[in-house]
Amino acid sequence: MPLKPCALKFNSLLLLGFKTMQFELTSEILDQLKEAIDARDSAFINEKLEELYAADIAEIINQLNLSQAAYIYGLLHEELAPQVLLELDDDKREDLLTTFSAKQIAEQVDNMDSDDAADVIGELPEEMQEEVLSHLEDIDQASDIVELINYDEGTAGSLMAKELVSVYAFESVGACIEEIRKKADNVDVMYAVYVVDNNERLLGMLPLKKLIISHPLARIEEIYESDIHFVRTDTPSEEVAEDMQKYDLAVMPVVDQLGRLVGRITFDDVMDVIKETADENMQRMSGLTDAVDSNDRLWRLSRARIPWLLVGMCGGIIGSRIIGAYEDQIQINPKMAFFIPLIGAMGGNVGVQSSAIIVQGLANNSLLGDNISKKLVKELGVGLLNGLICSLLIWAYAYLIEEWKLALTVSASLLTVIMCASFLGTFVPLTLNRFKINPALATGPFVTTLNDIIGISIYFLMGRILYAMF
Amino acid sequence: MPLKPCALKFNSLLLLGFKTMQFELTSEILDQLKEAIDARDSAFINEKLEELYAADIAEIINQLNLSQAAYIYGLLHEELAPQVLLELDDDKREDLLTTFSAKQIAEQVDNMDSDDAADVIGELPEEMQEEVLSHLEDIDQASDIVELINYDEGTAGSLMAKELVSVYAFESVGACIEEIRKKADNVDVMYAVYVVDNNERLLGMLPLKKLIISHPLARIEEIYESDIHFVRTDTPSEEVAEDMQKYDLAVMPVVDQLGRLVGRITFDDVMDVIKETADENMQRMSGLTDAVDSNDRLWRLSRARIPWLLVGMCGGIIGSRIIGAYEDQIQINPKMAFFIPLIGAMGGNVGVQSSAIIVQGLANNSLLGDNISKKLVKELGVGLLNGLICSLLIWAYAYLIEEWKLALTVSASLLTVIMCASFLGTFVPLTLNRFKINPALATGPFVTTLNDIIGISIYFLMGRILYAMF
Repeated sequence: MPLKPCALKFNSLLLLGFKTMQFELTSEILDQLKEAIDARDSAFINEKLEELYAADIAEIINQLNLSQAAYIYGLLHEELAPQVLLELDDDKREDLLTTFSAKQIAEQVDNMDSDDAADVIGELPEEMQEEVLSHLEDIDQASDIVELINYDEGTAGSLMAKELVSVYAFESVGACIEEIRKKADNVDVMYAVYVVDNNERLLGMLPLKKLIISHPLARIEEIYESDIHFVRTDTPSEEVAEDMQKYDLAVMPVVDQLGRLVGRITFDDVMDVIKETADENMQRMSGLTDAVDSNDRLWRLSRARIPWLLVGMCGGIIGSRIIGAYEDQIQINPKMAFFIPLIGAMGGNVGVQSSAIIVQGLANNSLLGDNISKKLVKELGVGLLNGLICSLLIWAYAYLIEEWKLALTVSASLLTVIMCASFLGTFVPLTLNRFKINPALATGPFVTTLNDIIGISIYFLMGRILYAMF
Repeated sequence: MPLKPCALKFNSLLLLGFKTMQFELTSEILDQLKEAIDARDSAFINEKLEELYAADIAEIINQLNLSQAAYIYGLLHEELAPQVLLELDDDKREDLLTTFSAKQIAEQVDNMDSDDAADVIGELPEEMQEEVLSHLEDIDQASDIVELINYDEGTAGSLMAKELVSVYAFESVGACIEEIRKKADNVDVMYAVYVVDNNERLLGMLPLKKLIISHPLARIEEIYESDIHFVRTDTPSEEVAEDMQKYDLAVMPVVDQLGRLVGRITFDDVMDVIKETADENMQRMSGLTDAVDSNDRLWRLSRARIPWLLVGMCGGIIGSRIIGAYEDQIQINPKMAFFIPLIGAMGGNVGVQSSAIIVQGLANNSLLGDNISKKLVKELGVGLLNGLICSLLIWAYAYLIEEWKLALTVSASLLTVIMCASFLGTFVPLTLNRFKINPALATGPFVTTLNDIIGISIYFLMGRILYAMF
């Protein structure tokens, strides 16, 4: 989104008594708020924040320093504050929570959904976790949180919430509605009611729509849907996200090893997983080893980048050794050095293009059922086509500007390099994937470095052969 | 996901009479099915497909050729067939539809949701569109489709479906339930009922949960929620996706210019938008100009890659001219050529790392409120730190292996190149974004090429100065 230099914009669509707004944070409103914070002008701040949703306020707080953030947070209404806390960036939330006592954190957590509460408490230092839990007023909430923080990160168990409505199959529609009424305050967003047997094992579900149109005396077992998707607490998060996306599910029930219903995962949690995975893949392909964003601290940004830079350095040193082996040739014909960057860059570009398509295909499952050799043949076809175009153009250029031997060397090696890079750009991610290594992890910088080295070798070898022949 | 070489796996979790499965397509089951298709063994195929969902069957058909796909599609149950059609890859669906008559397409489309139907018909050639519309049995469906295909691609109008339940504010809960009963078959998944005034203008919504727990004689206007999010038909899809993600909405109502409720967008449509945008950004950064996947045809794969390869070629040619200007120096000291690949590669790597973080920050709106200069200073800090580490290491290497003048040239220019690349990797995407150009479009290959050229210039210039000084 563009960084618009204009004032806070409430796109108020005033439609005859009906109003809603799209909030866009700008530097100007941020500066206004900072000034107001410095002046402790709570009236101005309250007025500004009044019409905003929790996610909007979190966007503002993310841009403030800790003392400013703590001040604004302290002004929030007690119902709004926990929601804002949840929407904050992880780093900012962690920082903010360090300024709270265990009791204060417990107050924030008491009214959250169990999964959100578990996320917040799970981020705290261990001794703090116990203290916060001991301050929780709602005992059920405390026991739900204890259960949830024990599930491994990256599993369905760690994503799910305990808030749901379940009914026994033998109950009536009327009893089910009674149950919903009881839980209405606790379960914020309800998509369906789950149906279980006497041992709490999941049997199926009943969409609210069906519940509404059924007769109050009808029995649940006569109307529920048994053909439903579900996952187990130990199902990996990515698999949950894939399934919910594939089958367009707004909510997914979670069962334990015995098939008992223990929680539910909603689409919004899964959207976050999808987004994080996509972001991570892009970062891996760009040579970042750690998930970072530009608001992170300097040393963390540096640490995430240095590993692949060092790999690139090693590649560069190997390249220097290869060229070193041809030192005599450069001495005789210094023009050979002119096209070193071209050869290296083209190998890198082609390699990244090829690997990006494969990494994405693997992530989207669109390569299933295909075998590696078929992909390689196709990729070589593309490489041949693009290689021919590029090498013809460079031949024409070098022939006109330099001399025919150099032109032949450059164009022939460029074609070979592009073909090689196409091959490696396809082969490397597929092979990494076969060995269960995230193909994005090593694809970008690894393929680039490899192609650099191979490209230089091909170029000088061809040069030596051609200059020796003619 | 890994390409597992094992047979079709039904992870049947048989939980005491309760069964559901996770389907995973493998080469083996695909080969079995292909054989069965060749043998026209419909019994075997039906048996295999029987337990699968539409999305799973579409995954299989995506891997088949046209005649195989048409045969399997012909075997599908008439209720299942349209669902499978919708889940197919765009290319495969287009191909498959060419084998259908207008009447056959109309039959498939008649039972789809209006948004899906409009998508399918919108993909057809114009004369075919009219013919299909004329064959539709459901006149309401036909008029909904005509409305939907007229909205611009990439707007809320093109994403929304017409299927929804709306009630007037003055009605009672009982009347609302009656309305739901009437529309139950038509609106597959229902999250809420929308509330409108006498002129069909959107006033708010009523979650089904609230409807269930309210008294049948209660009036809608007393219980509905008026503080809701909505978009207009001309709101860009990305904005819709952003809002639904930010505010965790399963469904978003769409109004026209007069504020009248005209449709609704569900989270699954928005998940697709998010995924496509992320995929596109990654492809843009990898130097692909067109959204392609590895199943696309060869010439299309080639066409998507050639533009940035040509830019890379131009960069390489400029690089050759720069080195050409230092030909005398290479002649005297051929060792200068050794480190050309290292300098080029490191500039490229650092540039990509920096720009990836910025592109992602822009996509996630996490850079709002920050100004460019602050980012640049921080990025230069990271560049300085990493540059110092790398240039010290390369100095030690070059000093030990080669000679001190070369060591100084390489290490000093590497530090400068890394700083430059950090600067450009940050500055270029931020600037593109300011001019409303997709920063991912030109970031990867553009930044790499630019850094290559700049790196070479710095390297040889430093070399000339240092060798002249000492």
